[in-house]
Amino acid sequence: MRKIAVGLLGLGNVGAGVVKLLEDNAEAIGHRLGGASIDLRRVVVRELKKPRLVDIDPALLTTDPSKVISDPEIKIVIELVGGETEARRFVLEAIAAGKHVVTANKALLATHGDELFAAAAKRGVDLYYEASVGGGVPIIRALREGLASDRIDELIGIVNGTSNFLLTAMTEEGRPFDEVLKEAQAKGYAEADPSLDVDGVDAAHKLCVLVPLCFGTSIKLEDVLVDGLRHLTPTDLHFSDRFGYVIKSLVIAKDHGDSLEARVHPTMIPKRFLLASVSGVYNAIYVSSYALGHSLYYGRGAGMMPTAVAVISDLIEVSRNLLGSASGGAPLRLQAPALKRSSKRIRQAGELLSRYYLRFSVDDRPGVLGQLARVLGEQAISISEVVQERHAEGRPASVIMTTHVAKEQDMQAALALINALPVSAEPARLIRIYE
Amino acid sequence: MRKIAVGLLGLGNVGAGVVKLLEDNAEAIGHRLGGASIDLRRVVVRELKKPRLVDIDPALLTTDPSKVISDPEIKIVIELVGGETEARRFVLEAIAAGKHVVTANKALLATHGDELFAAAAKRGVDLYYEASVGGGVPIIRALREGLASDRIDELIGIVNGTSNFLLTAMTEEGRPFDEVLKEAQAKGYAEADPSLDVDGVDAAHKLCVLVPLCFGTSIKLEDVLVDGLRHLTPTDLHFSDRFGYVIKSLVIAKDHGDSLEARVHPTMIPKRFLLASVSGVYNAIYVSSYALGHSLYYGRGAGMMPTAVAVISDLIEVSRNLLGSASGGAPLRLQAPALKRSSKRIRQAGELLSRYYLRFSVDDRPGVLGQLARVLGEQAISISEVVQERHAEGRPASVIMTTHVAKEQDMQAALALINALPVSAEPARLIRIYE
Repeated sequence: MRKIAVGLLGLGNVGAGVVKLLEDNAEAIGHRLGGASIDLRRVVVRELKKPRLVDIDPALLTTDPSKVISDPEIKIVIELVGGETEARRFVLEAIAAGKHVVTANKALLATHGDELFAAAAKRGVDLYYEASVGGGVPIIRALREGLASDRIDELIGIVNGTSNFLLTAMTEEGRPFDEVLKEAQAKGYAEADPSLDVDGVDAAHKLCVLVPLCFGTSIKLEDVLVDGLRHLTPTDLHFSDRFGYVIKSLVIAKDHGDSLEARVHPTMIPKRFLLASVSGVYNAIYVSSYALGHSLYYGRGAGMMPTAVAVISDLIEVSRNLLGSASGGAPLRLQAPALKRSSKRIRQAGELLSRYYLRFSVDDRPGVLGQLARVLGEQAISISEVVQERHAEGRPASVIMTTHVAKEQDMQAALALINALPVSAEPARLIRIYE
Repeated sequence: MRKIAVGLLGLGNVGAGVVKLLEDNAEAIGHRLGGASIDLRRVVVRELKKPRLVDIDPALLTTDPSKVISDPEIKIVIELVGGETEARRFVLEAIAAGKHVVTANKALLATHGDELFAAAAKRGVDLYYEASVGGGVPIIRALREGLASDRIDELIGIVNGTSNFLLTAMTEEGRPFDEVLKEAQAKGYAEADPSLDVDGVDAAHKLCVLVPLCFGTSIKLEDVLVDGLRHLTPTDLHFSDRFGYVIKSLVIAKDHGDSLEARVHPTMIPKRFLLASVSGVYNAIYVSSYALGHSLYYGRGAGMMPTAVAVISDLIEVSRNLLGSASGGAPLRLQAPALKRSSKRIRQAGELLSRYYLRFSVDDRPGVLGQLARVLGEQAISISEVVQERHAEGRPASVIMTTHVAKEQDMQAALALINALPVSAEPARLIRIYE
């Protein structure tokens, strides 16, 4: 029986899940490999002696990455160390050594993807990354398979479980962001430093992984309009509900033919839209394509076991490629982003079009709405709906409105002008609307 | 460049989509095949001269199936003729001739799956069937990939687009079944003879395809509890809404360890459950598994292009297997249902447990509820909620109730007894509740 030697870099949460599933499902995996087996040869860890989430033979452990990367018998390296610098070096070294790589590292791919995919293509090895987006949701595979006989027009996703958990709690319980975040941190649902999650950076990394798969164009983090959750208030959630929307932190990528749009921000979506029902730590990705129409993929976006399932699905596919091509068959491997190359222009943030929800905190006296409307009108922004709310005597009033479709740069210009008006008590708040 | 010769049986809706996508996406498909190409060699049709949904070289057409099945150059046969008898013969002949087969035929697989998979395994050829369930939703692939490193506990799906379209219209517009069906037939959304769809048989066929994939146990149509839509009334939909449910026609398969449960019926599900938001002709399959947790796959369950995408995804995978193994590589092919073999007992309909919604039409006089409650109680059925509605003087009253979990055979016994009571004006109606 043929054995495929595998080396694992990193034995944290996901690494432990991989070890466990490889053991628990050895037989089923063998079936998928036509009788071959996965032989976990070495596991690189930072410390040898440390409590582990899984039982593992201590003889497999090493702190020396070269024990994996330089072992000629090891054919596939699984990178689960996280971070960018060290992971980049390990992956490049593994590729240079002719090893196939499976990774779950979206930050790495978002930042160094072009370099890594080019290196893998040049060396003729696989670089697979199902676990980098959506945890157990097989979105990379669905996009890659779909690409072969379809054309993707748009992708809209909830890809950060922490943000969705926080937003769900804020929506259902009407509580403010800070309070909900603290509770999530206490329960381990949010990191001590939550910025990657709540400021949209993690989601933007994932979007940078998805865009080349969907459209064949690579994209940099700085090309993405990114906005986070911190400025959302219970008032905004209340009005969102009243206007018939739910607020979700979405990644949106859209092909406009000559150019692409890519953005990450809290978004008001109609309650009847399927993504509106995706609650808690779940992820979901909604894809619109020429042949399939609309499709949606939903599941746990993170966590030890779901992510491990994704890693192992890649491991099986790379092994199948290896078993096929090693014997002189066709080169079944494939760098997914290389499938279709295009080099569409990425639209600048200022060019993007949206409907907007706006909330102004202004002096409570007649004529103020007129001032706001005039500034908006001068920036070609047309108002759809307005609600004025008066609070206690002497306190600022709230003016809440939704607009028709407007250009981001016009909106930003208008808000700067409005914030500078003497009647403005606090900076205006904006939430983009998607329909 | 290597060419893979393919023969197509049937050039209806889906066949035309396959021809179109093969042509439109030849380059992308070539990439997926490491430079090899798909060569559509022959298309078997019933009539040579007939308007087609796609432009096709008339020289490719033939009415003689042996031109495909006996052509030694053709490696893969796509069966899209539908039906059971002729399709079974074609598929068996193609397998006997050493050809790999891709089919979209759920009725064929539900009825003759064991025979066909056994024949394919014996002859060492692939039999793929992504398009048989869920149209463009890649559910077969998701289950097959998942199976390798996961264990499925339960599958709940909306897999008949016509039923879901009718139910959505009934729910949203409060109109009766007959009226909605007639309109759907006029628009081409329902067949002239709608029984396969509305009586649950098509969904049951699909469930028979899914169960072996999920649990490794094959199942026959007669093992499945099947109920259709015809008896649903606007009153039921109204009360469903009032009790906090939406009615969907679901397939449900569940692993109880020692035994399996498989059923197809209109089901009341909580409004917040993701499947409750799946409207119109869409399909969605919700899977609960050990490692992944909950996942959901959603998309167009039928139609020319979505189904063609599924057929081509299989064609690509079979071609990859062929390119790999033809050159002496590992046998990458795989009969999915053979992945894990188990032979769990299928629970009889009478053993199944559900909560129930019941609607009785009874004489409008005091003491009637007591009679109903007594019979139910004697059958060990406990009532959860009751509403009595009085109508015009002299007309029967409606008693609507939900029960706690009860056994199907007890419920059927109770309803038979109640229907025989002198106070019963019409047979009692039952809808099963899933939570």
